[in-house]
Amino acid sequence: MIFFRNDYGEGCVDSIMQLLIKSNEESHPGYGCDEYSKRAAEIIQSKLPDTPSDIHFIVSGTLANLTMIRHCLRPYEVVLAADTAHIVVHEAGAIEAIGHKVFTIPNSNGKITPSSLERAYLRIIEDTTIFQVPRLVYISNSTELGTVYTRNELEKLSEICKKFDMYLMMDGARLGPALMSGVDYSLNDIARWCDIFDIGGTKNGGLFGEAIVITNPDLKPYFRYVQKQSGAIMAKGWLIALQFIGLFENDDFYKCAKHANELAKQIQDSAIELGYPMYMRSTTNQIFIVLNQIQYKYLKERIDFEIWGTWGNDTVIRLCTSWHTSQEEVDYLKVYMKEAMDQYVLSVQTEEEKEVSSEEKE
Amino acid sequence: MIFFRNDYGEGCVDSIMQLLIKSNEESHPGYGCDEYSKRAAEIIQSKLPDTPSDIHFIVSGTLANLTMIRHCLRPYEVVLAADTAHIVVHEAGAIEAIGHKVFTIPNSNGKITPSSLERAYLRIIEDTTIFQVPRLVYISNSTELGTVYTRNELEKLSEICKKFDMYLMMDGARLGPALMSGVDYSLNDIARWCDIFDIGGTKNGGLFGEAIVITNPDLKPYFRYVQKQSGAIMAKGWLIALQFIGLFENDDFYKCAKHANELAKQIQDSAIELGYPMYMRSTTNQIFIVLNQIQYKYLKERIDFEIWGTWGNDTVIRLCTSWHTSQEEVDYLKVYMKEAMDQYVLSVQTEEEKEVSSEEKE
Amino acid sequence: MIFFRNDYGEGCVDSIMQLLIKSNEESHPGYGCDEYSKRAAEIIQSKLPDTPSDIHFIVSGTLANLTMIRHCLRPYEVVLAADTAHIVVHEAGAIEAIGHKVFTIPNSNGKITPSSLERAYLRIIEDTTIFQVPRLVYISNSTELGTVYTRNELEKLSEICKKFDMYLMMDGARLGPALMSGVDYSLNDIARWCDIFDIGGTKNGGLFGEAIVITNPDLKPYFRYVQKQSGAIMAKGWLIALQFIGLFENDDFYKCAKHANELAKQIQDSAIELGYPMYMRSTTNQIFIVLNQIQYKYLKERIDFEIWGTWGNDTVIRLCTSWHTSQEEVDYLKVYMKEAMDQYVLSVQTEEEKEVSSEEKE
Amino acid sequence: MIFFRNDYGEGCVDSIMQLLIKSNEESHPGYGCDEYSKRAAEIIQSKLPDTPSDIHFIVSGTLANLTMIRHCLRPYEVVLAADTAHIVVHEAGAIEAIGHKVFTIPNSNGKITPSSLERAYLRIIEDTTIFQVPRLVYISNSTELGTVYTRNELEKLSEICKKFDMYLMMDGARLGPALMSGVDYSLNDIARWCDIFDIGGTKNGGLFGEAIVITNPDLKPYFRYVQKQSGAIMAKGWLIALQFIGLFENDDFYKCAKHANELAKQIQDSAIELGYPMYMRSTTNQIFIVLNQIQYKYLKERIDFEIWGTWGNDTVIRLCTSWHTSQEEVDYLKVYMKEAMDQYVLSVQTEEEKEVSSEEKE
Repeated sequence: MIFFRNDYGEGCVDSIMQLLIKSNEESHPGYGCDEYSKRAAEIIQSKLPDTPSDIHFIVSGTLANLTMIRHCLRPYEVVLAADTAHIVVHEAGAIEAIGHKVFTIPNSNGKITPSSLERAYLRIIEDTTIFQVPRLVYISNSTELGTVYTRNELEKLSEICKKFDMYLMMDGARLGPALMSGVDYSLNDIARWCDIFDIGGTKNGGLFGEAIVITNPDLKPYFRYVQKQSGAIMAKGWLIALQFIGLFENDDFYKCAKHANELAKQIQDSAIELGYPMYMRSTTNQIFIVLNQIQYKYLKERIDFEIWGTWGNDTVIRLCTSWHTSQEEVDYLKVYMKEAMDQYVLSVQTEEEKEVSSEEKE
Repeated sequence: MIFFRNDYGEGCVDSIMQLLIKSNEESHPGYGCDEYSKRAAEIIQSKLPDTPSDIHFIVSGTLANLTMIRHCLRPYEVVLAADTAHIVVHEAGAIEAIGHKVFTIPNSNGKITPSSLERAYLRIIEDTTIFQVPRLVYISNSTELGTVYTRNELEKLSEICKKFDMYLMMDGARLGPALMSGVDYSLNDIARWCDIFDIGGTKNGGLFGEAIVITNPDLKPYFRYVQKQSGAIMAKGWLIALQFIGLFENDDFYKCAKHANELAKQIQDSAIELGYPMYMRSTTNQIFIVLNQIQYKYLKERIDFEIWGTWGNDTVIRLCTSWHTSQEEVDYLKVYMKEAMDQYVLSVQTEEEKEVSSEEKE
Repeated sequence: MIFFRNDYGEGCVDSIMQLLIKSNEESHPGYGCDEYSKRAAEIIQSKLPDTPSDIHFIVSGTLANLTMIRHCLRPYEVVLAADTAHIVVHEAGAIEAIGHKVFTIPNSNGKITPSSLERAYLRIIEDTTIFQVPRLVYISNSTELGTVYTRNELEKLSEICKKFDMYLMMDGARLGPALMSGVDYSLNDIARWCDIFDIGGTKNGGLFGEAIVITNPDLKPYFRYVQKQSGAIMAKGWLIALQFIGLFENDDFYKCAKHANELAKQIQDSAIELGYPMYMRSTTNQIFIVLNQIQYKYLKERIDFEIWGTWGNDTVIRLCTSWHTSQEEVDYLKVYMKEAMDQYVLSVQTEEEKEVSSEEKE
Repeated sequence: MIFFRNDYGEGCVDSIMQLLIKSNEESHPGYGCDEYSKRAAEIIQSKLPDTPSDIHFIVSGTLANLTMIRHCLRPYEVVLAADTAHIVVHEAGAIEAIGHKVFTIPNSNGKITPSSLERAYLRIIEDTTIFQVPRLVYISNSTELGTVYTRNELEKLSEICKKFDMYLMMDGARLGPALMSGVDYSLNDIARWCDIFDIGGTKNGGLFGEAIVITNPDLKPYFRYVQKQSGAIMAKGWLIALQFIGLFENDDFYKCAKHANELAKQIQDSAIELGYPMYMRSTTNQIFIVLNQIQYKYLKERIDFEIWGTWGNDTVIRLCTSWHTSQEEVDYLKVYMKEAMDQYVLSVQTEEEKEVSSEEKE
């Protein structure tokens, strides 16, 4: 079985492991008040020269999301998010559990379009019986469907948020692949557009960890209090910081994402060439392919992938690459995809021949 | 500065680091559904032969506490805890943030006595205007003050809980030191007495991690759902499991605690011998000493410790040992404690001489 | 302006006012522990001979809904409701504020169909990444769109809930009109089908009040505790009880609903006859009519109604009757509706004539 | 049985009942957007000429408290309250259920003293491990023990709150009796001292209702949103407004309280004269008397009172007067108290005689 199940199936890149080993027996103050946490924040801040930010570290994604949202909102304020958003479909009601409603907006390839955001905002505000204030717009970049926001989209979303006094929050669990997908913007731009966002380490070369970046001055005070209350401060806080030092000191963050994207592109190109229907065209490290039952049966015994859903009688699967995926694994995958397609074509031919021969008999 | 600030100031024991390195590039399913998580649970279960348990892993302590308590309680049910309990004084209102009130019981050396528990239970139940049901008794072992529950106390607390239909939950963030403090009970006994408890890795040789042990069959279903909702499932879940494999496969869990306790005992014995008043007599790895201002001033420049509080004009400090503390560090500490005491004695004598001489002058 | 805005625009029927006056200076124990509360519960219980129930009283609807749902659910359990449900669109996130997610099901004339319920249940349960348990199905009867569940639908919904271990909860804010809409079931049937439901007094002749009926024995304990915690026990609890004594002692509950339904039917019949498009065909006291701008402009100056939404360029309005609506008011309304239609027809003719004449000129 | 159990045992004063009857069949918009609600707010505002306020109406006390506190606080902010406070002991964890911790301050006759408030604030702020911000100080006036804050105390509490950026909130469930207890301040002063407070109708002549007064401009926006979300807006909102029109239009609010206080004073004076120990000296309508078992047994069969607690072997009872209590009832009570005391004295004498006679026998 070759592993294409997800991008969090292996440990960490070597730079991080070396830092872990090297620092293992040094003594540190707890709860993120150590020198590594300071240094990690400085390195990340250096990538955001235009925007003085507060930077915190949280061990995992759902915990990061719920802490950020809890911090930003008053009880009557709600989140706007695409109906495919991670907080909507994969976080077990964590946002509702902290008391907030998520208004969903029909996604467009996993994204919220500026016009749909504006419409959703107005619909809530203009209905006097709703008594809820849209205050935070949650977007994932790259999205849960592997797509990436364009510069233009982000500028417009940011404008709308400013105009309507809403916070723009970016879930950057897969921000690395987004930034390396060929877009014309950088972390520095994101810091200008978003009020709060996180940079994901877990799915891009780290053992774990999200770096929370707060750019909006109104949101800076008391974040650590909410973090503590949410159980989101680690005793040995420097361990998360080490992930980000490892990822950003030598650009491993970008190299990992670039590597994963390139291999993913090979897979998508190959699938298209072989004639597989794509559920979604991706420019990042998640590839969504539609398999019929013959193809599915053939591939699931050779490749470890995630089932994303169904499409009529077919199955949508997700193939995920990561820093750890090798060219060799991708080559094997291509071969298997070809074989699966061949099997299917053969079966169709056989079926047709049977029909022809049975027709001839008549 | 010698480090006696806490027991979570360094990384992990070597057995865990080796596992991390060895497993780093293996591929695993996410969210704790991997083979290491299974194996870690099996090893821990093997320590609890009398009690078939469900075992889960959570990365840190407050997150573990809030997840366990959220899982156990209905909205109108409350926690009983000592007024010195971690959830009362050091978790930033995390329990209230998930909707539950904590009724505090005056501590006795950091512990809840059986009779005070019974009294607290009856007081709540008999007052018909309170409309709250005491359902979960939270105890820490060892306690926040370094003390340890006796077998007899735990048996009685467990009996009272069963009698009054309450869950007994043990916060085992420092369970290792408790078990190695000379008590006549083991993990297997704790599993029989408690409905749910956790075994702390963070403060006893691991990088992080609490192993949650659920023994009460009523509490087993759906724990993972609450865990997910609380942001308490790590993507690379095997990383927590590795901590517990490392700690329990070769008894490092016990060795670390034994080592820390022995060094702490030396410190406490030395302090007593030198004439320092003790804030609390400890049998584990946290030592609480009362320093006057001369001693405090002398020591704080040489030793990295935590200030616990004040006692009149004096300062209560906590000295903490861990798996990582060395005999050499303890020896230095003893020397410094002696010197601090000498300084004080000298200053008293000087003061007395001054008084004598000024009296003579008169 | 004639009042058709809602069914909670006036005080109460005379039977209740008489009880209020008569009992005003009697002395009672507080918090619903009085004789009137007992008697009101007995009268309601007498309508549910097949199902021994616990009956409580809560002053208003959102408070009743949030208390009932908080009482029924564990943190990871969610509500299934139509996307038109009151708790989804008109309660300001009250359910999320107590920590629970509401999964919405596309409505069919304001209702959940048995098949859509089954589908929604399976979709949640079969997706292993959701980590949420559907446990409570919320239906309104009559619905927010004036429609009513049939006996067959309720039997099937009840069956599905039992099969999948879910609670069926009916929001009976407008249960009176539902029961008097010609259905072949009674309160006694509803008690057999639902695990918990409420009977609305506010919108059917009372000053305020919902009678909460708990039929499922598992849900009976501790309801008052959740009620107290939610601020949902009134000091002078007998005041709510008086509403239900007044409504049920002489069948005013049924008479009020019958009266409102009959007048509503006249309005709907008249509107259809006049050629107005109906947004929804109702069998109860809420009528939804589509008005073009000429009709809208004409009517809004004569009738006090609620704007329900827009339909293309047209406006959907709701006309609501109640125990208090008079035949005279309905007669006026009919006249105005006729005039509004006449105006519109006239304007179309004028427009056509203009066109004809301008064509002739050419 | 004569009723001295509480001050919410009967309906309402006649002025309110007349308003209810008169307005019963008028038609109103819902949810407090009616003319009566506007007028009630205006009348109350006229009592607070120095402080432009937002005024809302909520049906009952716990609901008012939880709505106000939810509105004021961010997740990490906590309430400071006396350990005897209603929200601490009589509201079933309602404040914790909305996510906030209540730090208790040892009461001084039911009150928070300025110095104890300052100490409590500093204790929380200076401990860097607490991670909680004291933001709202909750006081009841009159207190749960019948005592009343002095002008000086309120001025100082208000100063401290301003100095430390905390909100001062007054629970005025029994504000009427406080204001008529002989204090040298008025509603207008309270509005200057408090950021938010409520004026209780339920316990002072109304059927129900708390008038919420928000004086701090920062707290004015969005209160109705939190109110709606908490289920704290009544459909027929004018009903609460009528209570306050009735109470304030002809000063019934003050007359009721004055009447209750005067009768209570008679009771307390009589009890003291008869030699009963007082649990607390009250200047309002709640009187706390200590009864031995003979007195208790005698009185409990003749008077309907509340048991407040125990004091050694004795029982502390609360006798409550209200707008509805009559001089005749108080006269009866005095007679019974005298008889109960006589019984006790007689029993002591008999006991002594027995002892004397048995001694003589020896």
